[in-house]
Amino acid sequence: MARGCSVLGAGGGGDTYTSLLAARHAIERFGPVGLVALDDLPDDALIMPCGGIGAPVVSIEKLGTGDEGRWLRDGLEQVRQGRVAALMAGEIGGANGMQPINWAAHIGLPVVDADGMGRAFPEIPQVTMEIAGISPNPAVMTDERGNVIVFRATDSDWMERMERASAVEFGGMSWSSEYQLTVGEAKAGAVVNHAVSLAIRLGTVVAQAEHDPVEALAREIHAARLIVGKIVDVERRTTAGFVRGSATIEGLDADAGRTLRLEIQNENLVALEGERALAMVPDIITVLDSESANAISTERLRYGQRVTVIAFPCDPIWRTARGLELAGPRHFGYDLDYAPVEDLHALA
Amino acid sequence: MARGCSVLGAGGGGDTYTSLLAARHAIERFGPVGLVALDDLPDDALIMPCGGIGAPVVSIEKLGTGDEGRWLRDGLEQVRQGRVAALMAGEIGGANGMQPINWAAHIGLPVVDADGMGRAFPEIPQVTMEIAGISPNPAVMTDERGNVIVFRATDSDWMERMERASAVEFGGMSWSSEYQLTVGEAKAGAVVNHAVSLAIRLGTVVAQAEHDPVEALAREIHAARLIVGKIVDVERRTTAGFVRGSATIEGLDADAGRTLRLEIQNENLVALEGERALAMVPDIITVLDSESANAISTERLRYGQRVTVIAFPCDPIWRTARGLELAGPRHFGYDLDYAPVEDLHALA
Repeated sequence: MARGCSVLGAGGGGDTYTSLLAARHAIERFGPVGLVALDDLPDDALIMPCGGIGAPVVSIEKLGTGDEGRWLRDGLEQVRQGRVAALMAGEIGGANGMQPINWAAHIGLPVVDADGMGRAFPEIPQVTMEIAGISPNPAVMTDERGNVIVFRATDSDWMERMERASAVEFGGMSWSSEYQLTVGEAKAGAVVNHAVSLAIRLGTVVAQAEHDPVEALAREIHAARLIVGKIVDVERRTTAGFVRGSATIEGLDADAGRTLRLEIQNENLVALEGERALAMVPDIITVLDSESANAISTERLRYGQRVTVIAFPCDPIWRTARGLELAGPRHFGYDLDYAPVEDLHALA
Repeated sequence: MARGCSVLGAGGGGDTYTSLLAARHAIERFGPVGLVALDDLPDDALIMPCGGIGAPVVSIEKLGTGDEGRWLRDGLEQVRQGRVAALMAGEIGGANGMQPINWAAHIGLPVVDADGMGRAFPEIPQVTMEIAGISPNPAVMTDERGNVIVFRATDSDWMERMERASAVEFGGMSWSSEYQLTVGEAKAGAVVNHAVSLAIRLGTVVAQAEHDPVEALAREIHAARLIVGKIVDVERRTTAGFVRGSATIEGLDADAGRTLRLEIQNENLVALEGERALAMVPDIITVLDSESANAISTERLRYGQRVTVIAFPCDPIWRTARGLELAGPRHFGYDLDYAPVEDLHALA
């Protein structure tokens, strides 16, 4: 599952290494976590989307205690005067896909086989629940000390601003829940269904590939290979609660002479060759280790890594007008009309 | 009352001009506001301390709508599952002393004749309730748009950090309530009693003085006159949610040849003549217009103003060990042992 979350993360959502250790440790202490399908829960049951918010670079060193999920759940139940039935990853991508497993083990709740993105995105309103008209209110945030904040925003942009400011004050990283919804709302299309199963399947494909795991993974998710090469430059700065920067990859072998630049805001947003965009948000651009096919998160990119950059289609909901408004290239400041990855490349 | 709040504000708490207009307007619309003594309320009645948080410079232009008090009260009653019986100024100093009048008119509640400082201070934990062991939790914050945040902090330092970060994100100024308490707790010494009456009395003394209002005011509050002179330099910057800087006053007439420097963080913190401190927090240092005896808030200090700088004793609770730890000169970074103003000067 951790491997699959990394692939779906588009470089973001946090590195899965520490989150995998934390989830394993929690399961050893508290027992296994149930993965439940939406159909297995009553329609009025309340789902708590949750995860980390902040700069992935910080999350490598600023680990939680494992109690954050309980604090979020308790805070939420107090505000909503109701019970949480299950946790759900706000984003399946990266560490945030694994985070609910850890917390669910601590508090004895199941995890829903769904998420709110089908990938990872940097900003709070970039979830399928926002597109479906679910309110971000109330949001609950906590830190590793036990401070708890409840937000009621006039709109999702203010929710982003308020939570981001608090995450920065907490040291660049904190944990939160927004956009809680009922199972009925989730079934009506407010989430990306089967997201956990997909992560597990992708990880299994990579782990079980006999010869070329990159090839096996690309086939499984119908990805385009943008370049095979070597990272020659990484520029990264942590500012205003985000990691921003770029990575440059020089082609090797069949791609010798080509240069690809990835533009980053927590996630890989756009892949450029010269002036030409080879892939762009909301489609998923992921950097794989060329040997192992393990995805490399944006904060782990380093000079000299041998990588294969792939791109594959996002969940169709992101290609709606509202989806592109929330998370298309223009939202992130790029003067680009969105072009689906399958229109730009032959997919595997 | 506005005149008296300005005098008690030590330059801070916000300028009373706009807050006086807002209070008058609210009273015209909704009718007069009751001022109640602690003895007139039942011991288990809940008092909501409230006011603005942020940089006074911003508060001149960033006015509230008048609804903020209702949003704070509603948010608080929801979280505490109980009714608010009366509002109280967190700090009687400056606009924050007037603020509850405006809100109380809007929501039809009385204002308690007390406050949490007996003056104005820049930081959230600098209230008598903190000294009395009242919890700052839950704090409620709002802005002029209707965003509402509820904070539960692990300690008062984290409350300060969390609220300050949000106030900065809201544009440098917002409104909040912390340290709610019962009338019984207030009577047991957790507040500065009769603070509103004192403000009204000081304002009346100034307004009714026949010859020298500065002299009349100084006699009424037993103030020392530190210097009579002219402002020759003001340095001010708005940073991290505070106004910081200094003002330099050159003596005139009997004080010719002397120079006084005021060190500012929202409020006047220390008055220095060369290396010598003439007065310091938590005692109250206020700059008066030499003609009218109207107090000039730190954000209104300007080159050329003819001023008289006075200093007078703070409420005795600030001279306790915990009071000085919270709001003495060392708390603000000055390498000074606190010396009461009456030990340094003959008082009027």
